[in-house]
Amino acid sequence: MPGRLVAGLQPVREAILAHGRALHRVSIEHGDSPRLEAVLRFATDHGVTEITREPRALLDALTEGTVHQGIVAWAPELELLDFAQLLTEPALLGIVLDGISDPQNFGAVVRSAVGIAGAAVIWGEHASAPLSLATFRASAGAVEHARLCRVPSLTAALTDAVAAGVKVVGLDPQADQALRELELSGPTLLVLGSEGEGMSRSVRRALGATARLAQSGRIGSLNASVAAAIALYEVTNQRVRSMT
Amino acid sequence: MPGRLVAGLQPVREAILAHGRALHRVSIEHGDSPRLEAVLRFATDHGVTEITREPRALLDALTEGTVHQGIVAWAPELELLDFAQLLTEPALLGIVLDGISDPQNFGAVVRSAVGIAGAAVIWGEHASAPLSLATFRASAGAVEHARLCRVPSLTAALTDAVAAGVKVVGLDPQADQALRELELSGPTLLVLGSEGEGMSRSVRRALGATARLAQSGRIGSLNASVAAAIALYEVTNQRVRSMT
Repeated sequence: MPGRLVAGLQPVREAILAHGRALHRVSIEHGDSPRLEAVLRFATDHGVTEITREPRALLDALTEGTVHQGIVAWAPELELLDFAQLLTEPALLGIVLDGISDPQNFGAVVRSAVGIAGAAVIWGEHASAPLSLATFRASAGAVEHARLCRVPSLTAALTDAVAAGVKVVGLDPQADQALRELELSGPTLLVLGSEGEGMSRSVRRALGATARLAQSGRIGSLNASVAAAIALYEVTNQRVRSMT
Repeated sequence: MPGRLVAGLQPVREAILAHGRALHRVSIEHGDSPRLEAVLRFATDHGVTEITREPRALLDALTEGTVHQGIVAWAPELELLDFAQLLTEPALLGIVLDGISDPQNFGAVVRSAVGIAGAAVIWGEHASAPLSLATFRASAGAVEHARLCRVPSLTAALTDAVAAGVKVVGLDPQADQALRELELSGPTLLVLGSEGEGMSRSVRRALGATARLAQSGRIGSLNASVAAAIALYEVTNQRVRSMT
């Protein structure tokens, strides 16, 4: 089967919403499940034509340990954005992930980015978790609506962004300034290091500024998706306030 | 072994930090692991006297499926706060969980509450996930530093809170007002419904107000711990601004 495998009730539902008839196939396990039947009706209503029923063991084998809840789908490949194009957006807001290797954290950050501000998520292809079934699942399907951008080198990309006039702010609990003290109404990228190690040295050198999130400086104890969400919320709120 | 079982590197580390010599025992699995040895040194440095090495199978059996990473500890029971006492705090800030039954979400909310504002976490003993090994683990150990309060009836507790002059605000993506439009410098409780079902009808009736989080009204797609974190951040920021 060609395409990108998605597993679980919420991820499949979001894939149906996002892709409709472009979804290659939805498969559920044999048996009597009103919840699964409801998703099948939802799929049919949205133009999905290929629907199959399969043995549970097949779904287990396909998903290799990711929770599938008896349902999988094959969706079109995710379209990734071009970084140079992103840099031309006057209201650019993106979260940059440096070295987040856990697909759970990666997916959770994508969910926050979609939920807060429709922000772009940008990562370096070497240092971060790849897009995977576990990522799609951890995002609760938000990945289907996300603005995603993978770059060959994060350091080079951030250097280009600063040169293009984008504010590139690293989130750092040790920073002198709080994020809310910065003026971020123009194009902005927020850089988040990994939970254990923080930002890499080369990425840190490419930053335009650093800022801490909360007054308490306790961001160190926050989950990556929570830190990302708060930072995006802060910038979005600033922008709303400057318009009113 | 008496006490409260805690499992995993970060949870045990936080339990050592919080309880020191009051920790009843730390046990690691047999074998050569520099990471585990480092935690043992940390335990000894903090006054833990009982340290044992056990077969991995024993740790597996004790933790019943929760990831333990080769290390467990027995900590003192968590001390819970008295709700009536909480209501007398002039700077009260708490997050109230209505019907959050998933220990992962519960633990993640506790982590956000500790990380953002040292906020109290309040829940009804019937409708929410109980404190469990999985909750402690999902909080990444933050539960050891948390201000926790369990009440027999959430509806009765919130009614008392409103009567005591506390602002009791339900987070609701359909609300007319945004949270940042409310004045929340006094004692405040923020009420969060479950991800699937939202708030129960009786809890909703006990609220003093409702508010949505973001301009986009997309809180529905946010994880509970992210929604809690943003709400707490908003209130904390308001309070900081009003002081400067």
